[in-house]
Amino acid sequence: MDKELLRVVLVAPRNPLNIGAAARAMSNFGFLTLRLVNPYEVAFREARSAVGAGAVLASAQEYPSVAEAVADCALVVGTTAAQNRNPQQPLHRLEYGARLIRRRLAVQPVALLFGSEKFGLSNDDLAHCHWLMRIPSRPEHGSMNLGQAVAVCLYELVRDPKAARARLTPPKKPTAEVLEALTVILLEVLGESGYIHARVEASTERKIRSLVRRLNLSAHDAEIWLGIFRQIQWRLKQERATGAQPKPGKDPRSWL
Amino acid sequence: MDKELLRVVLVAPRNPLNIGAAARAMSNFGFLTLRLVNPYEVAFREARSAVGAGAVLASAQEYPSVAEAVADCALVVGTTAAQNRNPQQPLHRLEYGARLIRRRLAVQPVALLFGSEKFGLSNDDLAHCHWLMRIPSRPEHGSMNLGQAVAVCLYELVRDPKAARARLTPPKKPTAEVLEALTVILLEVLGESGYIHARVEASTERKIRSLVRRLNLSAHDAEIWLGIFRQIQWRLKQERATGAQPKPGKDPRSWL
Repeated sequence: MDKELLRVVLVAPRNPLNIGAAARAMSNFGFLTLRLVNPYEVAFREARSAVGAGAVLASAQEYPSVAEAVADCALVVGTTAAQNRNPQQPLHRLEYGARLIRRRLAVQPVALLFGSEKFGLSNDDLAHCHWLMRIPSRPEHGSMNLGQAVAVCLYELVRDPKAARARLTPPKKPTAEVLEALTVILLEVLGESGYIHARVEASTERKIRSLVRRLNLSAHDAEIWLGIFRQIQWRLKQERATGAQPKPGKDPRSWL
Repeated sequence: MDKELLRVVLVAPRNPLNIGAAARAMSNFGFLTLRLVNPYEVAFREARSAVGAGAVLASAQEYPSVAEAVADCALVVGTTAAQNRNPQQPLHRLEYGARLIRRRLAVQPVALLFGSEKFGLSNDDLAHCHWLMRIPSRPEHGSMNLGQAVAVCLYELVRDPKAARARLTPPKKPTAEVLEALTVILLEVLGESGYIHARVEASTERKIRSLVRRLNLSAHDAEIWLGIFRQIQWRLKQERATGAQPKPGKDPRSWL
């Protein structure tokens, strides 16, 4: 997909804030060619909503008709909130339509049309389209904000299906040696503090060992917990040296 | 996924227009529980940008702290524009994070946190999160508009991977009988109009037949073209009956 080949075409947009928001979403996702057909307000280039996307607005081109705005495109796609305006014109859900657009963007320019905030694309506008595309919004409330519709469509274009299957940052895990060190010190602390008997049964030790593994700690966090329990252990030993007795609390061992 | 179990939490949002836009996107995608932590302006419930989503705004709940806003949730996810704020806190791309959220939403409430327009979520806010999620925007311009970020995240949650593989409305195709009728009448019209000789070679007929199939017409459109060529045929025959001669134009047959 060559992102430079996409033309985002806003047809008769009324609110400069929405034009700015569309430009911002374009910049967020790396599509920089904005075309406007008869924008309602001429001062759209100053829209403050285009945070960080001033360049997209500044280079936006204006056209007097849809035909002229899409003239260089080999695929013209109209967006619509309607479930089915005209059964003869193919209507694709965004998930599928974006695939077709990506494929075409590998070789030729594509126009993606968005209608005015109030009325969407007119039937005359839609007649310029090869097919229509629908964002899967609720039938009860299908009409989306212009800037949000642009953002969602462009997101689907840059979306990476492979990323859905893989984590971005698999954290480093602690070695068994570290987990065992943590287990041993935890057993000592639990014995020291009276939570379990100092000389525990093998079954209790096994349960504690397994409990530590279930924490599913990262390497980094395992070191922190090791430090925490070393400090607790040191403090408990100090207390014992100064003669303080650990207070027996309620017996919470029943869960073991 | 039980959509009622998602809590969209806006932390310290400043602009009521953005709160309204977030509510609209929520309504568009069918997530109706909005929570606000210390909104900057109290008059957000009147936000005009919540077109069609007044009910979401009206039922929005306010909380004095993140802890209270997410108290009932079994998974707390923070959104961030940063590539990697804190390497210890797992960071997932939206495509993967949404999968985890959907899975958890099948059984328990999930909080999805969005920070203020200016600063995003603070480090204190992020510490309440099990992990962070990033919309795959450009590194050069990662910061998204609040309403657009909400729209894109919720879209990914309702997105249907199966829909990417199947067309929504497979159009009915014409039968071979109809295509052949169209071919025959087209051959007659081309002969009648002087585009090809009235008695064409077999190879020319074969090329025209194949040309018609490559149009890849829908059943509906095939009938329209049949009507168009019948009318042209009728008119040509009438012209011949009244003695008018078809004018030979340039020879465009060279492409055949």
